[in-house]
Amino acid sequence: MDKSDHGVPRPRLVVIGGGFCGLWAVRALAREAIDITLIDRANHHLFQPLLYQVATSGLSAPDIAAPLRHILRQQANVQVLLAEATAIDLNARQVQLARGGTLSFDYLLVASGATHAYFGHDEWAAHAPGLKTLDDALAIRARLLRAFEHAEAATTDAERQAWLDFAVVGGGPTGVELAGTLAEIARHTLRQEFRRIDPAQARVRLIEAGPAPLAAFPPDLQQRTREQLERLGVQVMTGQPVQHIDADGVVVNGQRLPCRTVLWAAGVAASPLGQLLGTPLDRAGRVQVRPDLTLPQHADVFVGGDLAALAQANGKPVPGVAPAAKQMGSYVAQVIRSRLRGQPAPHAFVYRDYGNLATIGRMAAVVDLRGWHLSGLLAWWFWLAAHVFFLIGFRNRLTVLINWAWAYWTYQRHARIVIGTDPQASAGAAKPPPS
Amino acid sequence: MDKSDHGVPRPRLVVIGGGFCGLWAVRALAREAIDITLIDRANHHLFQPLLYQVATSGLSAPDIAAPLRHILRQQANVQVLLAEATAIDLNARQVQLARGGTLSFDYLLVASGATHAYFGHDEWAAHAPGLKTLDDALAIRARLLRAFEHAEAATTDAERQAWLDFAVVGGGPTGVELAGTLAEIARHTLRQEFRRIDPAQARVRLIEAGPAPLAAFPPDLQQRTREQLERLGVQVMTGQPVQHIDADGVVVNGQRLPCRTVLWAAGVAASPLGQLLGTPLDRAGRVQVRPDLTLPQHADVFVGGDLAALAQANGKPVPGVAPAAKQMGSYVAQVIRSRLRGQPAPHAFVYRDYGNLATIGRMAAVVDLRGWHLSGLLAWWFWLAAHVFFLIGFRNRLTVLINWAWAYWTYQRHARIVIGTDPQASAGAAKPPPS
Repeated sequence: MDKSDHGVPRPRLVVIGGGFCGLWAVRALAREAIDITLIDRANHHLFQPLLYQVATSGLSAPDIAAPLRHILRQQANVQVLLAEATAIDLNARQVQLARGGTLSFDYLLVASGATHAYFGHDEWAAHAPGLKTLDDALAIRARLLRAFEHAEAATTDAERQAWLDFAVVGGGPTGVELAGTLAEIARHTLRQEFRRIDPAQARVRLIEAGPAPLAAFPPDLQQRTREQLERLGVQVMTGQPVQHIDADGVVVNGQRLPCRTVLWAAGVAASPLGQLLGTPLDRAGRVQVRPDLTLPQHADVFVGGDLAALAQANGKPVPGVAPAAKQMGSYVAQVIRSRLRGQPAPHAFVYRDYGNLATIGRMAAVVDLRGWHLSGLLAWWFWLAAHVFFLIGFRNRLTVLINWAWAYWTYQRHARIVIGTDPQASAGAAKPPPS
Repeated sequence: MDKSDHGVPRPRLVVIGGGFCGLWAVRALAREAIDITLIDRANHHLFQPLLYQVATSGLSAPDIAAPLRHILRQQANVQVLLAEATAIDLNARQVQLARGGTLSFDYLLVASGATHAYFGHDEWAAHAPGLKTLDDALAIRARLLRAFEHAEAATTDAERQAWLDFAVVGGGPTGVELAGTLAEIARHTLRQEFRRIDPAQARVRLIEAGPAPLAAFPPDLQQRTREQLERLGVQVMTGQPVQHIDADGVVVNGQRLPCRTVLWAAGVAASPLGQLLGTPLDRAGRVQVRPDLTLPQHADVFVGGDLAALAQANGKPVPGVAPAAKQMGSYVAQVIRSRLRGQPAPHAFVYRDYGNLATIGRMAAVVDLRGWHLSGLLAWWFWLAAHVFFLIGFRNRLTVLINWAWAYWTYQRHARIVIGTDPQASAGAAKPPPS
């Protein structure tokens, strides 16, 4: 595998994870004399900020994903492998792969991201799917669309309402997006399409344990968020931790809220790969890294993206957002480049916070740009422009824009297609109407 | 459910299947005083002629499907149900549904289409998936893309070549489309993207039992088809029935061809619903209908589309193609309308054959318009124009066109995204390269 010139072996970098951190690191090393192997369990890089649009039928999966192989086809020093790491031997400098075989490395970047966590209640997972991958998004899409079908076929009022009641657990950006968009679908997109139910009777609850939605935003924008959600028809319940979830609904404050569709946007945990590194993890399973993103005992092993736990100068942790992951990826590349070239190491990693955006729903968003606060339609246009701009690298920007323009003017969503089998088929509640 | 005026009950029509036949029948009855229930196992109508494009990563699933509910939202006399018929009682005039409950009918149209058949070798299904639904298409897409990934990770030449060898069984339109497009992907789309394999080394075999591909076309166009396929790099094997299929390949003429990816485009059987009707079936399981598409003993029960077996005046059967299904749907609507209005029944159903098109691959197609024969680039443009035109009812035409234009100029295919788990993960053959 050594593409060495004149017999001098080139150093090998293994990158685990083709998300924003891993991909940005790989691309920044395009001109270096290093052999890179990028492994990922998926064949694609995913533009995660728009994943909720796939879950809510606004975009199709290929609109927000591109094959890693294709993105990197012209970068000769990288090989992409569809593979999963199962063990990491830091002393032997080897990564073990799921189907057997190992990869040796001189440098390692672990950037396998985050997954959803159920706070020790893994049994909730079956009833309250989370949103991290395209598979998750398509499963949620099918669940949302089928809920209205089940409601149409229901034979009792209680059953019908249970299918028309939706709970989104967690008031972070994903929960807010899902709740706002779901309310829009019920009120606008599905209008006229059913004969026995009125989709606008759907009740969307956003359940947040903390005092307000969007904890990372300043209080005035939290208040705007709540107002905009309520205007879209979402019932915002704050200060209410979820105590139980099952097939029939959620329990909050000791009170059962019957509903058949619960989405999980509350807990994020670092990828389990962090546990393979034998170093201290924080409460969310993230790996405590040194200021240059390396492991304490292993200067050639880097951890970045959502998997890394690092404090900023102000004491707050670097947030698990796409811009931070990209910056970490670029930084790791910079450190490796300086070592390859025998140059002095760069300063410690510093997260540059350019601001915080969150979309809420149709013409509703909040923007916090270093004290400059926007909400409503203007914030929404800002959010849209920023996201289309950052969808760079995907040639799909044009069709994404067309799909959005169409959705905006018609309230329609083009990807309302159910794929796969129905995990709730045995829920027993859905009976066709008597005729 | 009777939306009767002044207490007069309106007749009820149940339509099973929202394909071309069922949907065209429902739409043609929009102005009649009849209560229609359309049931389908999927929530969408599928533009089946472009399904191979989803299987080969050219289009995404929502590009060629639209929710039945959305298509019919403004037709007040129809209710759409996501449901599956499990039994039909022709005397009691009831359809039994999978989740319990029944639908009573005065008129019934069974148009549940066709599925793939393995000529009594159902054990081949796991190794040679067929292409009828969106789920099928996404499974085939994942299998094709993963084959190249497995080849890249293979450790022996034999293993590598087994993943680079593809067999398409059946030389009808679907088999020809799949083989031609697959060759194009290997030769052009994936170029430059792999480091250890050359995708152009992939071998695509089209295996047909009969003497030529595209049996429904005249001999000169069959010859053109063979030439165009070979120019695209497909090895066309005719007169060679498949004798066996397993995880390691196919057996033809007593000879084993090792390959890990086999696609099935050979056998079509009518939907098993035909067996519920208690009337004679033909060899492919299609229901023998009377000239007005009704059942012999039941003048109010119609069978249409791919499920119906009917001879044309020239003795040939009405083909199982989209135009025939649409014509049958419209005809059934016409018969029902005449009965509702007390008008004389229309003449027997006559299939109007406007010609036959088949696409082969990039700039390659054949067209037979009543003796007017085209092949090559011109035929391909004709095919493209016809299919974009008939994609009517889908608002996606614009994005489909953009995707095609992009694919045409760049050889790229925008939907190269693997979704779901790998059924071949235990094939054991794929090991990562030693490093």
